[in-house]
Amino acid sequence: MAQSPSTDRRFQSSDLEAFVARALIAVGLSAADAEQVARLMILADLRGSDGHGIFRLPQYVRRIRAGGMNLRPNILVVQESEATALVDGDNGMGHLVMQFAAKVAIEKAQRLGVAWVGARQSNHAGPAALYAMMPLEHNMIGIYLAVGSANHMPPWGGVDLLLSTNPIAFAVPALEEPPIVLDIATSVTAYGKVKTKAQRGEPMPEGWMIDALGRSLTDPRRAEEGFLLPIGGYKGYGLALVFGLLAGTLNSAAFGRDVIDFNKDDKTPTNTGQAIVALDVSRFSPVEAFKRNVDQVIREMRNSRKMSGVERIRLPGEQSHATWLERSATGIPMNDNLFKDLQRLASDLGVEALPE
Amino acid sequence: MAQSPSTDRRFQSSDLEAFVARALIAVGLSAADAEQVARLMILADLRGSDGHGIFRLPQYVRRIRAGGMNLRPNILVVQESEATALVDGDNGMGHLVMQFAAKVAIEKAQRLGVAWVGARQSNHAGPAALYAMMPLEHNMIGIYLAVGSANHMPPWGGVDLLLSTNPIAFAVPALEEPPIVLDIATSVTAYGKVKTKAQRGEPMPEGWMIDALGRSLTDPRRAEEGFLLPIGGYKGYGLALVFGLLAGTLNSAAFGRDVIDFNKDDKTPTNTGQAIVALDVSRFSPVEAFKRNVDQVIREMRNSRKMSGVERIRLPGEQSHATWLERSATGIPMNDNLFKDLQRLASDLGVEALPE
Repeated sequence: MAQSPSTDRRFQSSDLEAFVARALIAVGLSAADAEQVARLMILADLRGSDGHGIFRLPQYVRRIRAGGMNLRPNILVVQESEATALVDGDNGMGHLVMQFAAKVAIEKAQRLGVAWVGARQSNHAGPAALYAMMPLEHNMIGIYLAVGSANHMPPWGGVDLLLSTNPIAFAVPALEEPPIVLDIATSVTAYGKVKTKAQRGEPMPEGWMIDALGRSLTDPRRAEEGFLLPIGGYKGYGLALVFGLLAGTLNSAAFGRDVIDFNKDDKTPTNTGQAIVALDVSRFSPVEAFKRNVDQVIREMRNSRKMSGVERIRLPGEQSHATWLERSATGIPMNDNLFKDLQRLASDLGVEALPE
Repeated sequence: MAQSPSTDRRFQSSDLEAFVARALIAVGLSAADAEQVARLMILADLRGSDGHGIFRLPQYVRRIRAGGMNLRPNILVVQESEATALVDGDNGMGHLVMQFAAKVAIEKAQRLGVAWVGARQSNHAGPAALYAMMPLEHNMIGIYLAVGSANHMPPWGGVDLLLSTNPIAFAVPALEEPPIVLDIATSVTAYGKVKTKAQRGEPMPEGWMIDALGRSLTDPRRAEEGFLLPIGGYKGYGLALVFGLLAGTLNSAAFGRDVIDFNKDDKTPTNTGQAIVALDVSRFSPVEAFKRNVDQVIREMRNSRKMSGVERIRLPGEQSHATWLERSATGIPMNDNLFKDLQRLASDLGVEALPE
């Protein structure tokens, strides 16, 4: 969400992982599952996805306590063919479901060249990039699609909120350069950024939202009257729709009217749908030659002449990679509000708090 | 490109197919190949992709005569695993290469559930939707990606034209409703629409192009000074980049600086890269149930309350489907300029002209 000012506290990732695991164990997850979720949540923080990491812990705990997620899910492949699988997440935490699905996809792609694995009865799983990146270390390209966890967009020309900002992520390995990791919602901006603007009392830029009459909406306090705009107008609407069909409908997961707003409803199972594709580079090109060519494309883009006022041409994933390096070395910043929330949560759960 | 006024001539698709085939045979294609290309080109016209159908014939002929395309290509799978293949198009017409690649993908997906087939040494193949739709009749979802045939976008923040408007298309089967077919470039608009505005002496809307200083560019006569804008700013740049890596670099096809502007250079082989994915619905859901659910999503979107001034909420592919029905019944309209160009071409090639 907001970039953290330098006066924030900083925590080693291992301290935060241990804290998240303690909290999840306290509400009933197995130690193994809690550690796996904690690792992925804090990886989100390490990569700068501050709105998808430890920030979500109080909400996840609230949902678990309300009975909205299954603490001991039986995550299973329920339908399978050589290069595909459908995973039923049994309403477990999305991180567990998608880690499982990614593993299945990678194993199948190792044998067959490509695999497509869908998931239903899953939940919010944090940033899309985490899962798209899992195939990378196997010299594979990863693609991840999801139905978002709340509807914030109408169909193009409509006013009913029937679409989430259904995200997609792609990860492509490089040799000396960081991998290309593109992780985007199909809306121009994320709803979280609207909330941040409201908190700060700042207007939104034109092009983020419109109201029900189609007029530009820039007052974030009026956000509930309007809708997020899809990227490229009807194009982003089309992408959100197609990703919803592929990640939701195809897997018999929720899409459209059936999507539960997980910010407002802690109890109803969300039946979140996601999908992951793993594609083995070696089936198309010697791996090193491909990675070298990706490096070359990266450098070609970076070395383009710049528009005046532009300091650096960035590649998708470059900033997150730099943040990951920086935070791995110097720790993860945390603002005071979140810190207090987490200390309250620790006391509430009776677990050891974060170091002051 | 431009919508044709009702005073245009209309031709039966069979007459246009026969004409295209005659022209392609006259320049040296085999009858079988010429008929296949003709069928796909006129299918583009039937679906309303006027800029990608018979309109392209003079350009294709020019390129063939200049030696820029191989008339008798040996289109081959050069690398293969169970669920993947890499096709070398031997610089044949893109329609032939992608029809071949789609067939391979469908056969593999029938056996394994999903297949990913890449192509190199291909050429411009017309609208992306044509190939994404090929898996539909096999109860499969189709996805098609391509490196565009000319660079019109810089990387985000740059001014060098290193990216094409690399398109993607998705096709998802429905039951009673037309299939969902999304076919989009990663730029806000197509370069062809800019040219149309210039021809008509009309200004472009804001948001189509910017100049090298990042200022809005609305005078289409100044198009050469500026760049097409990607959808969603850096998001569309990221999508164009990733589609280029997947359809180009992975297949050892051209991407970035290596892309030949096929509008300006008729001789150099383009080494166009494309990719097609076929995904078998039955591996995830009973086919009829899935299609029924897609119908339901379609109707849910269509029946959303509308923004004031909006007549109808459209689904991706709905308009093209309606155009296909209408033109199949009443013929394909053709404006006078194109008609004259084609009659000149017929005389030039010594083939039977279109009926006056």
